Amino acid sequence: MIIEKINSPLDLKKLTFEELTHLAEELRVLIIERVSLNGGHLASSLGVVEMTIALHYVLNSPEDKIIWDVGHQSYPHKLLTGRFKAFETLRQFGGMSGFPKMSESLHDAFGTGHSSTSISAALGLAAGRDIISSQSSGTSKFKMQKIVAVIGDGALTSGLAFEGLNHAGHLKKDLIVILNDNEMSISPNVGAMSNYLSKVLTGTFFKRFRKETKALLEGIPKIGGTVTKIAEKAEGSLKGFFTPGGLFEDLGFNYLGPIDGHDIPLLVETLQNILDVTGPVLIHVVTKKGKGYKFSEEDPCIYHGTGPFDTGLGLQPNGSKVSEECPSITYSEIFGNALTELADSDSRIVAITAAMKEGTGLNVFADKFPDRFYDVGIAEPHAVTFAAGLAAQGLRPVIAIYSTFLQRSYDEIIHDVCLQNLPVVFAIDRGGIVGEDGPTHQGLFDLSYLRHIPNLTFMSPKDGDEFRAMLEFAVALNAPCAIRYPRGKSSITGNPLTSIEQGRAEILSEGSDIAIIAIGNTVKTALGAAALLKNDDISACVVNARFVKPIDKNMLSSLALKFKKIITVEENIIAGGFGSAVLEYLNASGFSDVKVKLLGIPDEFVEHGAQKILRKKYGLDEEGIYKAAKSFLV
Amino acid sequence: MIIEKINSPLDLKKLTFEELTHLAEELRVLIIERVSLNGGHLASSLGVVEMTIALHYVLNSPEDKIIWDVGHQSYPHKLLTGRFKAFETLRQFGGMSGFPKMSESLHDAFGTGHSSTSISAALGLAAGRDIISSQSSGTSKFKMQKIVAVIGDGALTSGLAFEGLNHAGHLKKDLIVILNDNEMSISPNVGAMSNYLSKVLTGTFFKRFRKETKALLEGIPKIGGTVTKIAEKAEGSLKGFFTPGGLFEDLGFNYLGPIDGHDIPLLVETLQNILDVTGPVLIHVVTKKGKGYKFSEEDPCIYHGTGPFDTGLGLQPNGSKVSEECPSITYSEIFGNALTELADSDSRIVAITAAMKEGTGLNVFADKFPDRFYDVGIAEPHAVTFAAGLAAQGLRPVIAIYSTFLQRSYDEIIHDVCLQNLPVVFAIDRGGIVGEDGPTHQGLFDLSYLRHIPNLTFMSPKDGDEFRAMLEFAVALNAPCAIRYPRGKSSITGNPLTSIEQGRAEILSEGSDIAIIAIGNTVKTALGAAALLKNDDISACVVNARFVKPIDKNMLSSLALKFKKIITVEENIIAGGFGSAVLEYLNASGFSDVKVKLLGIPDEFVEHGAQKILRKKYGLDEEGIYKAAKSFLV
Repeated sequence: MIIEKINSPLDLKKLTFEELTHLAEELRVLIIERVSLNGGHLASSLGVVEMTIALHYVLNSPEDKIIWDVGHQSYPHKLLTGRFKAFETLRQFGGMSGFPKMSESLHDAFGTGHSSTSISAALGLAAGRDIISSQSSGTSKFKMQKIVAVIGDGALTSGLAFEGLNHAGHLKKDLIVILNDNEMSISPNVGAMSNYLSKVLTGTFFKRFRKETKALLEGIPKIGGTVTKIAEKAEGSLKGFFTPGGLFEDLGFNYLGPIDGHDIPLLVETLQNILDVTGPVLIHVVTKKGKGYKFSEEDPCIYHGTGPFDTGLGLQPNGSKVSEECPSITYSEIFGNALTELADSDSRIVAITAAMKEGTGLNVFADKFPDRFYDVGIAEPHAVTFAAGLAAQGLRPVIAIYSTFLQRSYDEIIHDVCLQNLPVVFAIDRGGIVGEDGPTHQGLFDLSYLRHIPNLTFMSPKDGDEFRAMLEFAVALNAPCAIRYPRGKSSITGNPLTSIEQGRAEILSEGSDIAIIAIGNTVKTALGAAALLKNDDISACVVNARFVKPIDKNMLSSLALKFKKIITVEENIIAGGFGSAVLEYLNASGFSDVKVKLLGIPDEFVEHGAQKILRKKYGLDEEGIYKAAKSFLV
Repeated sequence: MIIEKINSPLDLKKLTFEELTHLAEELRVLIIERVSLNGGHLASSLGVVEMTIALHYVLNSPEDKIIWDVGHQSYPHKLLTGRFKAFETLRQFGGMSGFPKMSESLHDAFGTGHSSTSISAALGLAAGRDIISSQSSGTSKFKMQKIVAVIGDGALTSGLAFEGLNHAGHLKKDLIVILNDNEMSISPNVGAMSNYLSKVLTGTFFKRFRKETKALLEGIPKIGGTVTKIAEKAEGSLKGFFTPGGLFEDLGFNYLGPIDGHDIPLLVETLQNILDVTGPVLIHVVTKKGKGYKFSEEDPCIYHGTGPFDTGLGLQPNGSKVSEECPSITYSEIFGNALTELADSDSRIVAITAAMKEGTGLNVFADKFPDRFYDVGIAEPHAVTFAAGLAAQGLRPVIAIYSTFLQRSYDEIIHDVCLQNLPVVFAIDRGGIVGEDGPTHQGLFDLSYLRHIPNLTFMSPKDGDEFRAMLEFAVALNAPCAIRYPRGKSSITGNPLTSIEQGRAEILSEGSDIAIIAIGNTVKTALGAAALLKNDDISACVVNARFVKPIDKNMLSSLALKFKKIITVEENIIAGGFGSAVLEYLNASGFSDVKVKLLGIPDEFVEHGAQKILRKKYGLDEEGIYKAAKSFLV
């Protein structure tokens, strides 16, 4: 295989175009095979194989810098930058990250994971390059540094990308932005920008028209200076008009394209041509997401990020390798189904997603209530303020966003929703350890970043049934409310919903030696730990906290009266989280003789790896809680 | 006065254009007078007097909705909507808010304060209107509801505004966005969008050219169908081209303008004409910030937001009513001066602001090091990721952002800076109670939203000298670092800088009965409280914590061994804040016999009012801490 001889991008430069084309096929096979075994982001990586080859053929990484927006498309980049062998360990604990990571390779110029950071980061690199080279002697290696950001059209919807474009167009730094236009983000794109790009792509008419008009203007008899001048100006101005990327030119970029993103010679030639253009350049490249694999070409949404699958059969309808027998479904599906059911009888309910219709389970809702469903694109801050507007009209917007992405809306949650006490419901998916996607995607801060916001009610369910009940409670509550639930599955009994009362926890098992207060998915683990403790004749009271805010003060007081030792369990950073809330209450109420042990994530970022492995590592599995209790009781 | 007869916008409609013009003058006088007494946002309110009159003349508030972006320009709106008498209490504790506030008036359709929320909120209102009217009978009052967002050109730089535009252009809801173009935000604008708008304003050439070209094209002999067709298409297409707002049209808006924002009849006519246009419309209105008051016309930056001043003399050079004698200067000035000094000997230092060059004190730096200074416009998320890029090149970016606005960068701080452990310094101005600007601007969450982020070092200085030392420490630290300091002044001695050691607190006064651990500006207050306690023969040990993270564990342990009662003091929400960190440590270290009292802000938003009044209200003045200690010791 050619790839075996590629130890660094330098080796690429020795190859012919024919060999490069062959290499592209090799990369595709490797990626499909590996993702089918390890899970990962398939469709986006397949879409940029040729572009990655062309970039590394023309540029000199790591001196030159390539920033992959989101970074889920970086598998070909990793394979070409000395990580062919490490690729086996993709997304596995201790192995290669599924995203660019500065600490993993010099070729990963800037770590990514969340969308739309690449232009801002690239502009920072460019500004830094220019400062350093102006300060150093003329031979600085910085001087020649080329900086390229590769960003998908979906990511362009985000305000952060716009802020980056706006500032780049102002600073006029040498900088190349490659717009990787596959007409989708995770879900098919929305937004006027997307419409605009579609128009550009179908703009061949304009190109033809431009030629004809030019001929027309040239044909006009030159009667004196005025008309000539007009004609000249028209030609100059028409350039701006007929170049289909007028919007980007308005923002200060030189625009080039659209060009075919699967044509290696064309990509190489284009890149070589623009390398020395000064100022910011945007190259509009058209690619096919999922390119080269039948299943992912047909349904790039499903193959955006996947678990393991059979390469010959593709993913099964339920998204897993083989259809499973247990009646459990994902929390996202539970959410989508439950909300759709509630919306049937409550016409105030509307649903909002930020480019995650399928991921959040809202596809069911969208199908049934298309007029009450909004996909705002990758635009989490807008999603929240938009929801606040809907709530101000008397509706009950429910926003489903992953915990890690909701971090982008922190200010809007405070300023637009909670300060005005508007009844917006936040359905926070992927709270806790998410696993293989790693530190950029872990949902380990939400209990801390939301619990200190006034007016917010904040819950986390122990299972699917309780989740449905909490959703019903949240929609009925006339105030801001958040529910946090994990990545993964839960059984649902279909039994009548448990009734949720504001700020009320529940005791799941009485005990006499120690109390374990757990929140969310750790409740089930705590019950398991209690069973292990029972084998040692230790009687543990297990409490399902349900509410992070308001916390159940009565319950805590009665526990503090009965137990001298209390353990709190949460899948969240310990600092400022749920256990911290318990401590604050017990302290404020004078229960200073009660000893409390806080289990959760210590002061560090959590790497990628299977949920099970990470839970074990941080003592958040049954064994971990059991051991913590044992040592606490000594 | 005419204004005395305006009890609601209905009363406006009875007036002639001449009376409306007279009314505009009355409003200006009232606003200048009131701001000179109470302080407030002068220049922006003066700029929109005529626009506000025209809007209320044409629309029917509160049935129709007007959203004022940022809201600092809402004084004329408040005066015209039944709050003429309340206007005396502008920004005073218990009085009228300086920003639109839903709970203050039905005419305040959506509360604002932070920039660039108006389009998103307006779109939410519009989508809500359409859902509700489609669900109800044909006579729904919602059906006729007009929704207008008024947004400045400065606020358009923010990604949130772009996300709103992008989604609005996609949804095609009936919605009017008034772009209030005064060619500045708080500082003069930056960004490609701003350049673009300037080009539009100087685009009169294009308008003339359009006419001429049309004549030209009409003059072409119609030789067969093709040319006619081309000519027709050219005319149609040229419309898009020559309308100067092409960028907005690309984003799905109908664009109209630019028009004179001080011409009431023109504004009224324009608004009446477009009221029934379907789909989103953007009206480009040109105004003069500070209009009608000599001093603010000349220097709208300084008169953006001011303290009290003498209307005849204007603001004094130091920004206060009269020049003061004490040698104290604002923390912002201390920051600007100290950073400039440090940058003299450390060429890695670069500074970044988000449209707050003067407010953050960075004007000094910008003057001295123009090539190492970046004003990114109102774009806080970008500012942080841009800084991460600079840091990745080996530079030491220092970002100065107000605490409340840094909330917008929460995700970027985690994802782009701290996860990658990049040496970015966050200078967090206006931490704590800010006073008259009220709940949208209080900096009362930062200790909670930053302290749980791994890799971040987080400090707060007790005074100006310590602040300088901390800044020096932060820049030398090869990791993410934040310093939080208050709105207000401090003395600086000019003495050699105190030396700061990572994670080390300092004891300011020994004591034997109780320990008071304070952070930031509360340290001085704690010392005052200790003096009061001394009068009662209570000996208090006062500790200046310096570090929120890492907290001084050795110091806490030794305090816990010596004292059975410890008070923590912070100007921050208690939940998850500094005191919470102390509790977490003491609990984890088994000091459960120590009683701790956490002083800070309870679980509520803090209204507007003088800092002094608010500190008293929340027990964060000397008296409050003294009383808390007394009752704690009982």
